[in-house]
Amino acid sequence: MKFRTLCRSTLIAILLVTTAYAQAPLPSWNDGPAKQAIVSFVHVTTDSSSPSFVPPEERIATFDQDGTLWVEQPLYTQLQFALARVVALAPQHPEWKTTPPFQAVLSGDKAAIAKFTLTDLEAILIATHSGMTVEEFRAEVKNWLATARDKRWNRPYTELVYQPMLEVMRYLRANGYKTYIVTGGGQEFVRAYAEAIYGLPPEQVIGSALETQYEYNPSGEAVLVKAPKLLLNNDKQGKPEDIYLFLGRHPKAAFGNSSGDRQMLEYTQAGGGASLMMLVLHDDAQREYAYGPAQGLPDSKIGTFPQTLYDEAGAKGWIVISMKKDWKHIFASEN
Amino acid sequence: MKFRTLCRSTLIAILLVTTAYAQAPLPSWNDGPAKQAIVSFVHVTTDSSSPSFVPPEERIATFDQDGTLWVEQPLYTQLQFALARVVALAPQHPEWKTTPPFQAVLSGDKAAIAKFTLTDLEAILIATHSGMTVEEFRAEVKNWLATARDKRWNRPYTELVYQPMLEVMRYLRANGYKTYIVTGGGQEFVRAYAEAIYGLPPEQVIGSALETQYEYNPSGEAVLVKAPKLLLNNDKQGKPEDIYLFLGRHPKAAFGNSSGDRQMLEYTQAGGGASLMMLVLHDDAQREYAYGPAQGLPDSKIGTFPQTLYDEAGAKGWIVISMKKDWKHIFASEN
Repeated sequence: MKFRTLCRSTLIAILLVTTAYAQAPLPSWNDGPAKQAIVSFVHVTTDSSSPSFVPPEERIATFDQDGTLWVEQPLYTQLQFALARVVALAPQHPEWKTTPPFQAVLSGDKAAIAKFTLTDLEAILIATHSGMTVEEFRAEVKNWLATARDKRWNRPYTELVYQPMLEVMRYLRANGYKTYIVTGGGQEFVRAYAEAIYGLPPEQVIGSALETQYEYNPSGEAVLVKAPKLLLNNDKQGKPEDIYLFLGRHPKAAFGNSSGDRQMLEYTQAGGGASLMMLVLHDDAQREYAYGPAQGLPDSKIGTFPQTLYDEAGAKGWIVISMKKDWKHIFASEN
Repeated sequence: MKFRTLCRSTLIAILLVTTAYAQAPLPSWNDGPAKQAIVSFVHVTTDSSSPSFVPPEERIATFDQDGTLWVEQPLYTQLQFALARVVALAPQHPEWKTTPPFQAVLSGDKAAIAKFTLTDLEAILIATHSGMTVEEFRAEVKNWLATARDKRWNRPYTELVYQPMLEVMRYLRANGYKTYIVTGGGQEFVRAYAEAIYGLPPEQVIGSALETQYEYNPSGEAVLVKAPKLLLNNDKQGKPEDIYLFLGRHPKAAFGNSSGDRQMLEYTQAGGGASLMMLVLHDDAQREYAYGPAQGLPDSKIGTFPQTLYDEAGAKGWIVISMKKDWKHIFASEN
């Protein structure tokens, strides 16, 4: 084949692949209003001749994590980690054997654990997430994730990420959007794996955070030690407050799945212009879980999706994503 | 001229300009150890064959603002703004006429103002920086900056930015560094002009911050209202703590000018590998100000540069920038 012919063939091949990709940016999504809303939002905000064009520096998309990007049932992954840490740290805390809520964890009292209040959970989170340098904490998280397994699927938690949502993140990034996780979970916990799992650098993870304490290690070097005091509670109204604290702007697109994300979606819409607000509805008990009373599904303490949120979504033009109808695959391993 | 000749001439011209720029990246700097340290840091961290090469995602440079990027004497610009706001808001606060510290501001009692404690200043900052939406606050700052003038130079405060430091920021950015302001001043105050003055988007400004309160305006839209409570005190140890909170990484380069920047520089160096820590010394009373007892200059409540900081810089290889010796020009208008 002559060089010129080779060049032409290569160009045509590239063109075909590019066109195919442009035509099918979300391969794990079924055609329907949800997929259409995402594609059309990207088109109108990135076409420079569109009245809804968004300049690149304002292209910000925020994603809740638990229940929006990965499985949150039967218990948030971070709580599984915290409970495992209570067991691991127990020898250094003999008093925990007789102190609630640690006592229940150490004796494996599932009924008591199921009844934990927010105060109980906060006590466990603070006790297991403080007292070490930030680097030591990240290493602990990585070590635990390397061996811990979800019981239902017998797979690492980091494999229980929703393939369709990874595709949304990649699609948005390919169109100049900067993607952020905005999670009620711990910022440091998520940053430990966000780069590997979501392709997100640490500065693109906003989450709940304990204070850190500036100290010097025995070699006289500066270290930051996680302190037992909550600085940011990045849930509900905390989400827009912290988005503004970190970024100083409204997102243009926001994805959530529960009452904890309501304010983030409201705040995204309040920025004006074209915006995209989406809620993942867990209505697929077979392939994942089904919960959310709005759809006549069982209620859940985790990832509450009440009728009022469903009503607000309808009234404000937010799009509800049905896992059952909108997603061809839930996990990458199903492809 | 034939097309081919034109092309060749254009290419040669571009090459010459590019080479000239590469040879002289910091035109307002005199040759000397400070300029050399910056250029050599950029070379060793961006040359992929260098053992000190820093991957692009880790190229973070942080800059204190007051006294490092612009004039901080005789009073921080933000305090000038706050004092003007006290006067402007006084009609809505008749009680201020008889309440310290507001009383002193309203009666123009300069002696009393000079003696203000940190508690007095905090009361004034909180009273003048809260109770409005974040958008309203930014508009107030912009309005004030448009007409306020520094008395010595009779010029807008935003023109009192150090030209040599703007060149450092641009030079670092041209070499893949992401530049951040990390200021003890108010994050919202600085964000109001950071884009125009420093070319920095709001997410690249980290500063002291009040809490915000999520509310709904009369149209039912989400708004964030500045609340009278300090959330982040971004000074001294607060600087590395907040850098980690926002970015999750050590900077590779850090620039400051006082005790308030000590921990940021220590933390930068503690990240390991090649790093650059620099302190601006104000030793030029004629062109700007001279203060800092380490050099036998008068002490100053603002921008303290004590002997201990000077000693630490010497012991740890931090570079002290002499405004007098290292800078050809102080302000852009002198060019």
